[in-house]
Amino acid sequence: MKIYELGPAPSARRVSIFLAEKGIEVERQHIDIRGGENLSEDFKAKSLNGQIPVLELDDGTTICESVAICRYFDEAYPTEYSLFGNNALEKAQVEMWQRLVELRGLLVAMQAFRNISGIYQDRENCIAEWGEESRQRLIEFIPTLDKQLAVTPYIAGNNFSIADITTVILCDFIQNLEIQIDDSLPNLQRWYQHVSERPSIKA
Amino acid sequence: MKIYELGPAPSARRVSIFLAEKGIEVERQHIDIRGGENLSEDFKAKSLNGQIPVLELDDGTTICESVAICRYFDEAYPTEYSLFGNNALEKAQVEMWQRLVELRGLLVAMQAFRNISGIYQDRENCIAEWGEESRQRLIEFIPTLDKQLAVTPYIAGNNFSIADITTVILCDFIQNLEIQIDDSLPNLQRWYQHVSERPSIKA
Repeated sequence: MKIYELGPAPSARRVSIFLAEKGIEVERQHIDIRGGENLSEDFKAKSLNGQIPVLELDDGTTICESVAICRYFDEAYPTEYSLFGNNALEKAQVEMWQRLVELRGLLVAMQAFRNISGIYQDRENCIAEWGEESRQRLIEFIPTLDKQLAVTPYIAGNNFSIADITTVILCDFIQNLEIQIDDSLPNLQRWYQHVSERPSIKA
Repeated sequence: MKIYELGPAPSARRVSIFLAEKGIEVERQHIDIRGGENLSEDFKAKSLNGQIPVLELDDGTTICESVAICRYFDEAYPTEYSLFGNNALEKAQVEMWQRLVELRGLLVAMQAFRNISGIYQDRENCIAEWGEESRQRLIEFIPTLDKQLAVTPYIAGNNFSIADITTVILCDFIQNLEIQIDDSLPNLQRWYQHVSERPSIKA
């Protein structure tokens, strides 16, 4: 079993934090994204979306998409406490927040960053105006997280979940967009300081 | 228990097909999206993303995001066969395909449609150039589905899953973008004709 990744990339870090929370160690192989190693036919045969991370099982089966990789480990290595939720309502609430943070947060932040910076303009059309619009929508979304954290200790409720991992990744990533978790977001700020102390996130 | 929805909207239809597959009937309440009923404070208090569908439980707890609603029913009303997969690998493969079809298909199609048509320009900035770019990326993604369906009977493998439901919704929605599942996509075409015969999808 092996994970192909670029360690500091947001989606690779999501898997790393998830595995650290579960105490699972997996062999890693570095892929040079900026150099275009993920554009090779060999890599594309492993990764349906052409992206890292990719989990390769011992029989050669490959799984891409970071959340799908996390779900594999959650199911194949069950522990008493699941980061995807532990009853029907909790699982639905984790899924809801996971999607909210991803679809209105992380993906929007990625579109903002890629379209404003043009970091991958050698391989995609960048439309700066959409980047700026995305950055604005992201700024409008972030207070939703602060409001939630005023009433619950973690993003999806009373327990730390994969939605918290996605939110940590978001909070770190938005620094690339010159957006800060400042004093106008006291609950998000407090939560961020608190979860940053977890060994999985410190690592 | 009640679902707030606009029946023909893609995300409401996903939940309807899912419930029909599971044989669950739930009370529905129509929400007038074009008229802006979802913009009211009353609705926003129920729906964190301001969108339909929203599931309201008998104790007043609400869940938005269509996949989260499906997951609630999958967990709260378990059947022998889950549309989210039935072992660790299958669950990971369903999650992977569900995400691929959603993140590279349905969401891209929505961004294309909203930005090209300007249907919600009374409530969002539309950037036609991003709409056209999204439409092009969607056209480049669709053959991935055809290629998969050349080797597996359903999107995520041997069994019908929520990833097939999302793909049906995508195939129907792209007609708004004048994209057809034509003879250049024989496997996707065959799969579409086959799954369209399911009572849940015919309804």
